[in-house]
Amino acid sequence: MTTNEIMVKMVFDRWNTQIENFGKTLHNLTDEQLVKEISPGKNRGIYVLGHLVAIHDHMLPLLGLGEKMYPQLIQPFVELPDKKSTTIPNAQELRKLWSQQVDHQRQQFGQLSTDNWFEKHTAVSDEDFAKEPYRNKLNVIVTRTSHLSYHLGQFNLLK
Amino acid sequence: MTTNEIMVKMVFDRWNTQIENFGKTLHNLTDEQLVKEISPGKNRGIYVLGHLVAIHDHMLPLLGLGEKMYPQLIQPFVELPDKKSTTIPNAQELRKLWSQQVDHQRQQFGQLSTDNWFEKHTAVSDEDFAKEPYRNKLNVIVTRTSHLSYHLGQFNLLK
Repeated sequence: MTTNEIMVKMVFDRWNTQIENFGKTLHNLTDEQLVKEISPGKNRGIYVLGHLVAIHDHMLPLLGLGEKMYPQLIQPFVELPDKKSTTIPNAQELRKLWSQQVDHQRQQFGQLSTDNWFEKHTAVSDEDFAKEPYRNKLNVIVTRTSHLSYHLGQFNLLK
Repeated sequence: MTTNEIMVKMVFDRWNTQIENFGKTLHNLTDEQLVKEISPGKNRGIYVLGHLVAIHDHMLPLLGLGEKMYPQLIQPFVELPDKKSTTIPNAQELRKLWSQQVDHQRQQFGQLSTDNWFEKHTAVSDEDFAKEPYRNKLNVIVTRTSHLSYHLGQFNLLK
């Protein structure tokens, strides 16, 4: 294994583990549990679920893998806090989006070569990337893994 | 920057950010808030704090940077669940250990060179490392960042 292959494996092992862990908890929670607040006055499980799908959706354009698939989730799950949106998809719909997204992204991420992961992501200019070469595609997975772990810790409190 | 330097920076940017974020929340919480449960029936803030210090302490021997400094924290914060230990350090003591540890580990981690981070950690044999070269020291930081983010998401619910 080259050092670059090692790095891609280290980063994706974490990402895949946390995606699987979130999926397991989601599978074991009922729709009734999902609409409960994680802690009194805090976000509901359903909000955390929609928030993660919306944030992960943004990885596709960032990685040059196409447009967002669920732009309708940005307002209710990113721009607005929980309980402020008049209409949000229900638990059943969000479960479907989560599964679809996991499958689609696994397939899409698999199309990038090891070297592709060390190329710049689309939100950084060539000029900035020359000075800040760590703003690569792999770093998108690194930061999103951290974000996912943060919300997984909260989501698991619903169990 | 070499690819190895880029990788070390990517991983440590996340680690340092989450350590700082946890420290900020800790600073802003009162001792009264720290002894509250994060969600009804779940771990108290003080348990999450002690748990993180105990788990981070284990990184020193794993990275070949000396013995654990706080082995007395293993039983109450790792082996036993919250509210099962008869005596645990109080909030003031744990705050002190957190700060001491952050300073000590920043200084210790800084002594390793970029190449050192790609060497094996101490819990893997030479033989296994030859087959699984991703079980390096940097991966200890990767996995602990994920663990820290998980508990930071919970800890922030106390705010």
